[in-house]
Formats: sequence, structure tokens, C-alpha cells
Amino acid sequence: MSTIGFIGLGVMGRPMALNLLQAGHVLQVYARNPAHSQALCAASATLCETPEAVARGVHTLFINVSDDAAVDAVLFGAHGAADGLAADSIVVDMGTSSPAYTRRLAARLAERGIHLIDAPVSGGEAGAIDGTLAIMAGGSEAAFQRVLPLLQVIGGGIVHVGDSGAGQIAKACNQIVVSAALLGVAEALSFAARHGVDGGKVRQALLGGSAYSRILEIHGQRMLDANYTPGFKARLHQKDLGIVLDAARAAGLALPATAIAAQLMHALVEGGGGERDSSALVEIVQQLNDIKT
Amino acid sequence: MSTIGFIGLGVMGRPMALNLLQAGHVLQVYARNPAHSQALCAASATLCETPEAVARGVHTLFINVSDDAAVDAVLFGAHGAADGLAADSIVVDMGTSSPAYTRRLAARLAERGIHLIDAPVSGGEAGAIDGTLAIMAGGSEAAFQRVLPLLQVIGGGIVHVGDSGAGQIAKACNQIVVSAALLGVAEALSFAARHGVDGGKVRQALLGGSAYSRILEIHGQRMLDANYTPGFKARLHQKDLGIVLDAARAAGLALPATAIAAQLMHALVEGGGGERDSSALVEIVQQLNDIKT
Repeated sequence: MSTIGFIGLGVMGRPMALNLLQAGHVLQVYARNPAHSQALCAASATLCETPEAVARGVHTLFINVSDDAAVDAVLFGAHGAADGLAADSIVVDMGTSSPAYTRRLAARLAERGIHLIDAPVSGGEAGAIDGTLAIMAGGSEAAFQRVLPLLQVIGGGIVHVGDSGAGQIAKACNQIVVSAALLGVAEALSFAARHGVDGGKVRQALLGGSAYSRILEIHGQRMLDANYTPGFKARLHQKDLGIVLDAARAAGLALPATAIAAQLMHALVEGGGGERDSSALVEIVQQLNDIKT
Repeated sequence: MSTIGFIGLGVMGRPMALNLLQAGHVLQVYARNPAHSQALCAASATLCETPEAVARGVHTLFINVSDDAAVDAVLFGAHGAADGLAADSIVVDMGTSSPAYTRRLAARLAERGIHLIDAPVSGGEAGAIDGTLAIMAGGSEAAFQRVLPLLQVIGGGIVHVGDSGAGQIAKACNQIVVSAALLGVAEALSFAARHGVDGGKVRQALLGGSAYSRILEIHGQRMLDANYTPGFKARLHQKDLGIVLDAARAAGLALPATAIAAQLMHALVEGGGGERDSSALVEIVQQLNDIKT
């Protein structure tokens, strides 16, 4: 099989890269924090010293870093990957970037004959480990078809949503739905607590009906257990809601529930909860209502 | 088997009563609109002329009417059921009533030696027909155990949440979660539309990840199809959110996302959408944002 490049070996990137290795692919990797590459190197990946070196000789380069600025730095910074990539190669950005940046990036890479697939994911660390992530892809049909066999190693449900940026638009939609769901569950459990009713029984009762959601099932239980080990960190959720509301403002779009969720997420992060799972949002609703847990 | 009383044969009550009949129970029924009783009478239920007559000789009386006032009227109005009920009989209120009213009702019935189980449901008309409703019950353990075999005919997941009113608290929590989820999906699909991305593909992509919910699956598709045949009518959703916010205000509880959802539901109902499925809430978000469909 041909060699694949992989940049960014954090909580999500590491298990994705391991799944590619275990499927028999040859990987060369780069991580800003070299300690993150140990598991990959033990599994026979080649550690490179720069993004440019990772990009040399590969047809597909995966990038899994935290934001637009980090994507830009690994591609166009000193010893950036863009200088190592051959024409007709494909960059797959699996992080959550802004749709506007993604469209600009696609145009910039196209000048060099390089294709971009934006392919953000949903499903968390567990989904990355199990290879069951939902993947929302944007880019040309031809480039999508070329990377699809690799995406199928990384994820379960893979949808080609549309042109460049469409994957990031879908991811923004995902975060809109997830944050409204988190806030709804947080308000419901606070309502039950204030009325002296067992939140665990309420969650159990609701799971059987129209209110069922993964958020109620998984994050509802985290809230009941006050277990905020991430999972998905509040500061990253805050970042993603920033992308959503920036894109909404640019489009002149009012999103009242998302705006409320973002405000409360700011309160969570500013109050020191940025490294906790974003389901700790319930504690802001509890504080607002002076509910002791 | 002993005879069961059933009052209220609307969209939800009728299929529930039919399931009890089909399980072999003997039913006597009352409906304010006698036309609603045709299917039941064809299936051998006895139609009574007053609530009092329905209540005579039964150990269990189901009530499935629209609100507190309607429950009160069938129990304590002219020829009310309370006058027909024997001591140690059980009233099962399956509608969505306010928790405060439910607690007062339990006390008032207890003076006559009558037990109350509040047992509101979630799962809609389809769940009522299939007998798969989620049922959230409040009341004493002894009374709950006595009606449990009947509830198992009507529903799937049955949870005894707590004392009288606890079922209604759980139902209020259900409506908090559902309305936040509806609004989140409405905002996400509006975001996708404004950015020129296919909402159907976004829904499909999101279903595979953390954003999965029954609301996204079922009501998201309704929104995409602009199919607002109820389902669950917006005016009833508005009524339920009124119960939630009254109970929250009485408890001094701030529920920001629920309040926003209730405001937009008012706009939907006042704009003439009261008889449509409450997923038509997306049209209010679209109007707000001048999105054409």
C-alpha cells in the first residue's frame, strides 16, 4: 500500500492513525509534542521532524489539529507540509475548522494542484478508538472517492455532504444540535432536582420516548454522576460554538438557542472548567439556580 | 378479568383503550365527543353516558383528557367520576397535567380513599398504537404495582419515578429536553440552508454521531419534508411548556433554553400553526431569518 502522512496525534488523531496502521497502511507522522507519537512509532509508524518531511512522497495527508491557525501553521509555516506535497495529492482536514477558512484553504491548495477534503468527525474519543466516528466530508467527488477507503477505516457513517466547506458546515450543525441537547438535558435535570425528583429515574423514563438522544444517554449520566473527565473538553466546545456563531453572524443568521448555549459555555470555561467535559455545562445551570449537588 | 373504566378517547386515548380491549380486558368508556367511541364500541367496549357511570363498578379508571381543567371536570363536574368510584379504586391520569394540580388531586382523592397514579406518556400516536409508549409514573408503590400489568399493555418502558406528581415532573423534563432538541435541529437546518448545504445530507451525517436523537431522526425529516401533519400538535406543546415554565417560576428556577423555545412556540401557535405538528417550529426560525423553503 502507498504511504500516508498524518499530522496531529492528540486524543482523536492518535487512535485514528493507529487504526490506519492496523489496517496495513504505511504511515509517516508528525506531532508538535513528540511524546504523542510513541504509540504510533511502537506500531511501526515513521516519525518525521517537520510537517514538510511528513508530506514528502505521500498521496494523502491527514491533518488533525485544533483550529484554523494550527492547520495553517502545519501547512504553510516553517517547513510546512504544503512545500512537501506533490501535485494531485490530497489533504484531509479532520479537525473542526471554520467553513470560511476551509473554502479559502481549498482555493489556496488548488493553486498548487493539491486537493482538499474537509472531513470533521463526531463521536468522541471512543468513536475514534472503535473506528465508528461519523465523518462529514466536503470536497470534490473525485477526491472524496479516492480517500473513501481510508475514511472507512477511521469511521462508520461517512457522508459526502457537498463541496469544500460543506463538511465543516455539517460539523457546525452537529455542534448546534449537541449544545442545544446538552442544555436541554441540563435544564431538565435541574428542574427535577429543584422539585425533589430523582434525576436518574427521570433520565431512565425519558430514554424510552421521544426525548431519547445520545446526549441524554451518555452526557445525562455524566451529569448525574458529576463525572466530567473528558470526553470532549469544554474549551473545544466553546471554540466550535465560536466558529458556529461567527459563521452565523457573517451570514446574518439569528440562532437564539445556540447563542444561549454559547454564553453558558463561556461561563463554564471562564469559571475554570475548560479542561472538563462540556457536559459540565449543567453546573452552570445549577449555579444559576443555586442547586446544590 | 375485572372491568376497567376509560375516559377520553382522543388521538392518544383511543389506541390505548383499544390495546387494553385486545389484551382481553372489559372496558366501559366515556368520550365528550361520542363519535370518538365508535372504534371502541365496535370492539365490544360499553359506552356510558356520564363519567360517573364509567366509574361505577371499576377498580381502575384511566383518564386521558387534555389538561387540568378537563381532568377536574370529568372527576368533579356534573355526574363526575369521583362520585361513581368505590373506595380503594385507582385513578390513572395519563394526560399531561401540572405537577402542582396532580399533588392537590391526589390529596382530594385520598379523602375518599381513592388512589391516584399520574402516568403521562411520551412516544406520540405511533407509540400509543404500537403499545410502546414511555410511561412515567408517580404515586404510591402499592397502587403502582396494582396498575403495572395494565400499564404494560399500554406502554414499553415504564418507570415509577416517585410519589404523586413525580410522573408529571418527569413529563415536564421530557418536554424540556424535546423542545430544546427541536430548536437545536431547527437552528441547524436553518444554518445549513443559509450556507447552501443540503439539509438532508447534514441530517444523515449527524445521525451517525453524538448528535443522534429521535427528534433529529423523526422531526428533522418532517422539517426537511415540510410535513407538519401531527404527530404532536403545537398548541399542546405550547400548553406543556406553559406547565413547565409555571412550575419553574413557582420554584424560582431559570430555564433559559426552555424559555426561548416557549417564546418561539407562542409565535408558531399565534401565527396559526397550533394544529400543526410542533416540528413546524423550524418555520419560525426560518421566518426569523428570512429563509425561503
